Amino acid sequence: MSKLFPDSVRRLLEELQKLPSIGPKSAQRLMLHFLDAPLEDVRTLAESLTQLRERVIPCPICGNLSENGPCAICTDVTRDPGLICVVEEPIDLIAIERAHDFKGLYHVLGGRISPLDGILPEDLSVNALLSRIADPEQPEIEVREVILATNTDVEGDTTAGYIAEMLHEKFPELTVTRIATGLPIGGELDYADQVTLIKALQGRRKV
Amino acid sequence: MSKLFPDSVRRLLEELQKLPSIGPKSAQRLMLHFLDAPLEDVRTLAESLTQLRERVIPCPICGNLSENGPCAICTDVTRDPGLICVVEEPIDLIAIERAHDFKGLYHVLGGRISPLDGILPEDLSVNALLSRIADPEQPEIEVREVILATNTDVEGDTTAGYIAEMLHEKFPELTVTRIATGLPIGGELDYADQVTLIKALQGRRKV
Repeated sequence: MSKLFPDSVRRLLEELQKLPSIGPKSAQRLMLHFLDAPLEDVRTLAESLTQLRERVIPCPICGNLSENGPCAICTDVTRDPGLICVVEEPIDLIAIERAHDFKGLYHVLGGRISPLDGILPEDLSVNALLSRIADPEQPEIEVREVILATNTDVEGDTTAGYIAEMLHEKFPELTVTRIATGLPIGGELDYADQVTLIKALQGRRKV
Repeated sequence: MSKLFPDSVRRLLEELQKLPSIGPKSAQRLMLHFLDAPLEDVRTLAESLTQLRERVIPCPICGNLSENGPCAICTDVTRDPGLICVVEEPIDLIAIERAHDFKGLYHVLGGRISPLDGILPEDLSVNALLSRIADPEQPEIEVREVILATNTDVEGDTTAGYIAEMLHEKFPELTVTRIATGLPIGGELDYADQVTLIKALQGRRKV
């Protein structure tokens, strides 16, 4: 099969297939697109790829994607510095921002506790979070609440539990919350999985 | 929303979203993958992209993807040069090769007749096909059959019809065939669209 293609095509196909959710067919479709697309576009894409790796650094405050120093969210003075939402990865931050509802700051952990994958609490930016809450250089900022918005699977829950414990220990006055679990809006009971249903029942609220 | 991201991220996201079937969410997922992936992989991908455009040329004989002169299929002496399968694009050739059944050669038209998109017969490599069938430099090769394997939609059928007419006119002895239409194997009548069903009934064969 692969003998069909000239070397440069084969090489690109191999690289494309390393990408998430790109199989052999999508790789071929992308390759043919690159052959047809304006040369300028393909060059720009190639350049953007290398520049991304040269320029993007984690925000020194929250761990979000940034280029020079603190990120666009940490430097946004209209946001509430007293509210910190803890997420696993930058993609989770993006998801929450997409909802246009949260106006506090973030803290990106850089993963979740998962001993099976060799990820331990010390591999995450938990200490940075703790020292951020009690930053002696910024005594005017008082963090009132930390929202634990790690994923709602086992590892995410474990991570949230671990951080909650650390926070309670070090800052007994601080409000620590966990994002709600339950049925998704517009979801049908019939289609909900068992665990979600149990959580939704347990988490029922008076109306 | 896009203010969230540093410039280099925004630029890459824009370029990624120009790709077929990549929306904003897939673009973000790919971008985060590129941030995490080994630097070497990202560099290789960027290089492969530019090299593809520098090196790949259409095969001078059949129009398939090639690098230097005739493609891997045209130079494969084990294939039957008396049988030519006409397809619209290299991706169609790939699809047929994937089935591991066809052992003849190909002719890639480079599109299909579509006046609405401004694609006329002269924009396709039909003349190259005609002169290939009666190549004075290769009198020992006698093309016995041309299979018209353009897509089975209106434009594909029109293109096949046009080429069939040209071939009949110039080479009355040549066998010209069209790939069969009908129900896909494993397909259920219940799910088949009306046109496919009509074609399948019209194309019924004695058993």
